Amino acid sequence: MESGVDDKVRVELGARSYDILIGPGLLAKVGDLTASVLPATQGAVIITNPAIARLYGGTVERGLRSAGFKVTTLEAPAGERAKSLAAANKIYGRLLELGADRQTVILALGGGVIGDLAGFIAATYMRGVPYIQLPTTLLAQVDSSIGGKTAVDHALAKNTIGAFYQPKSVIIDPLVLETLPPRELRTGLSEVIKYALISGEPLLSRVRELLSLDLGGHNERTRPKAPDARLTKPEARERIHDYVTEPKARKTQQTGFSGALLAGIIADCCRYKAEVVAGDERDLGRRAVLNYGHTIGHAIEVAAGYRRYNHGEAVAVGMIGAARIAQAKGWLKPADVRLHQELIRAAGLPSTTVKVAAAEIYKHLKHDKKREQGSDRLVLLKGLGRPVVAPVEPNLIKKTIAGLSGGVK
Amino acid sequence: MESGVDDKVRVELGARSYDILIGPGLLAKVGDLTASVLPATQGAVIITNPAIARLYGGTVERGLRSAGFKVTTLEAPAGERAKSLAAANKIYGRLLELGADRQTVILALGGGVIGDLAGFIAATYMRGVPYIQLPTTLLAQVDSSIGGKTAVDHALAKNTIGAFYQPKSVIIDPLVLETLPPRELRTGLSEVIKYALISGEPLLSRVRELLSLDLGGHNERTRPKAPDARLTKPEARERIHDYVTEPKARKTQQTGFSGALLAGIIADCCRYKAEVVAGDERDLGRRAVLNYGHTIGHAIEVAAGYRRYNHGEAVAVGMIGAARIAQAKGWLKPADVRLHQELIRAAGLPSTTVKVAAAEIYKHLKHDKKREQGSDRLVLLKGLGRPVVAPVEPNLIKKTIAGLSGGVK
Repeated sequence: MESGVDDKVRVELGARSYDILIGPGLLAKVGDLTASVLPATQGAVIITNPAIARLYGGTVERGLRSAGFKVTTLEAPAGERAKSLAAANKIYGRLLELGADRQTVILALGGGVIGDLAGFIAATYMRGVPYIQLPTTLLAQVDSSIGGKTAVDHALAKNTIGAFYQPKSVIIDPLVLETLPPRELRTGLSEVIKYALISGEPLLSRVRELLSLDLGGHNERTRPKAPDARLTKPEARERIHDYVTEPKARKTQQTGFSGALLAGIIADCCRYKAEVVAGDERDLGRRAVLNYGHTIGHAIEVAAGYRRYNHGEAVAVGMIGAARIAQAKGWLKPADVRLHQELIRAAGLPSTTVKVAAAEIYKHLKHDKKREQGSDRLVLLKGLGRPVVAPVEPNLIKKTIAGLSGGVK
Repeated sequence: MESGVDDKVRVELGARSYDILIGPGLLAKVGDLTASVLPATQGAVIITNPAIARLYGGTVERGLRSAGFKVTTLEAPAGERAKSLAAANKIYGRLLELGADRQTVILALGGGVIGDLAGFIAATYMRGVPYIQLPTTLLAQVDSSIGGKTAVDHALAKNTIGAFYQPKSVIIDPLVLETLPPRELRTGLSEVIKYALISGEPLLSRVRELLSLDLGGHNERTRPKAPDARLTKPEARERIHDYVTEPKARKTQQTGFSGALLAGIIADCCRYKAEVVAGDERDLGRRAVLNYGHTIGHAIEVAAGYRRYNHGEAVAVGMIGAARIAQAKGWLKPADVRLHQELIRAAGLPSTTVKVAAAEIYKHLKHDKKREQGSDRLVLLKGLGRPVVAPVEPNLIKKTIAGLSGGVK
């Protein structure tokens, strides 16, 4: 294994196969790792946003330069507005001015928004150039950077313009999670919990161990500040060094939380996703199981106008909904549903009620389902680690959503 | 073979394989042909432009409806400005409003511009929906509709935003060429001549037969008018019914030109391209031979600001340049170069000089080559039907371009 790489997960897609490399400190080694997958490449363009550029841009640039690449960094705007054709069009223009060609590699340095945008640009600039994902959020590390889904938003609907386009490599450095705002960490933990519930053991036990202490924000005031306090919102200024620490890690005495444990869990999530994607690259069948909690979750996000709840928070509530439906069908035991709630609460995520009107949630769920030409089918568990896509009677969905909605009309 | 299909050419690309179907009157059978490749599809969206919609939109819509499809026609603006992210964005919006999903089929009804735009939209809407090419120009029928190259233009450079995305089928109705303006027919003939020169016999003899009479515009005044004279520019108002006529065609007495001959030649060109594309889908190697005449030709187009010369006209002159270079290298005989000129002149295309400064052409050629990280390599013939990609000394290119430029400084 390459130096510094603790875990390597292969995504088997024939000619489009690639490795996910996981290891603390890998961001400093991106130059050599890129050279080893793209030996003939000379030009490299990093696509990132201003906050991430300030934190990690220098490290990645230096690594690429010392490996012999000619490097340029292009910054997309902060936030979701980076995921637009307008932002993509500006970057196409910069790439043309730079003389970027089909041999130029694009490196997506950031979270899901940057990964989706840079992946879409890589898929469409000159009909496709190689790209590498450098995910800097937990959500991107365990989910969005893997599998080749790229997209920008249309004014009328999110993620509706995109392509399936696989990266040449995904390089995951868990140490970057140190600078992740706690709420962003929690949204990633929601996906981690999803993997634990749909894959079952042994990941489930590891995630229970990880979440043995409340990650909801305790001790935040005593933690060191982020490198630059202007980077992030007030509630997110705390570093989470206590949670994500050195690799072969000493268990942090204070929390019992081990960085190495999290790195291993990230690798397990990647392995699961890689295996599902290998069997269903274009999301026509089995890949649907990765949407556990996402159907109701997405309807909550939309109903709340993409404001009150972020992706992971909405998915957490969606998983509770799916668990209750499975219980009503006799597929999950009450203890399984309680486990859902305990994991979600331990991660500091909302577990049972959201402040959105049930009718609104149901309306958006119906709209999504109609677009998919599906009847009322949801990903449900027939037991922990046994996801299936199953039809659900509309009344059961309605009743369940009413139970999740915190009394708002 | 399906009813009405005279020729079927398979493009072998594994899971992305598809058929090119050729036959007079096939446009009226698009509904059944679409149903046979996409049996589960219900929604169909035709992307076209106003002129083509008026000529053929009704025929295609009726055929689709009678085969049970729910049909909508969306019109992009006329001309090259349809090939833009702005035009694509409007159509994405209409697709979303219509509730188009990943099962909806897009039909690209038009020439190269519409094919490129609609193909790009199909590649990127919802990360890819099925599409079918219905090329209505000779250029699109023998070239751009086949092989999965889709693109829109960026303000800074043409065709720089796109994807390789294969259609589910290409349906070619040679009868539509009846309404093609003569200059558009000639630009297509330039590509046909290219195929004849790079593939050699037997296509070469068939094209010589086809071009045994001058297509340059004789008798235009005596021909019937196009169905709607407002459709096209004054010089293009004539129908070319004499040249492209009924299928199993009677040789038109007046010209000796047979529609069946042209349909067969279109099929031969498709067969050649299909075979090259099957061996090099993403244009990394052998597909380059399809660019015979295109390197110098493209530099002429750009140097003339995409105005004075259209694609086929510029490529015609580019082929003469390539032939002269091959002669200088001792690869082509003087008779081969004369054959180039005779074919090109017989098609009514400019054969030897263009009114663009040689220095300008050379500048743009160097620029293109730099972007491809290539040295000075061109597609040349080592004999008729024997294309190779070969290095050429800069001085020989310069001298050749000077010989093509009609004395403009």
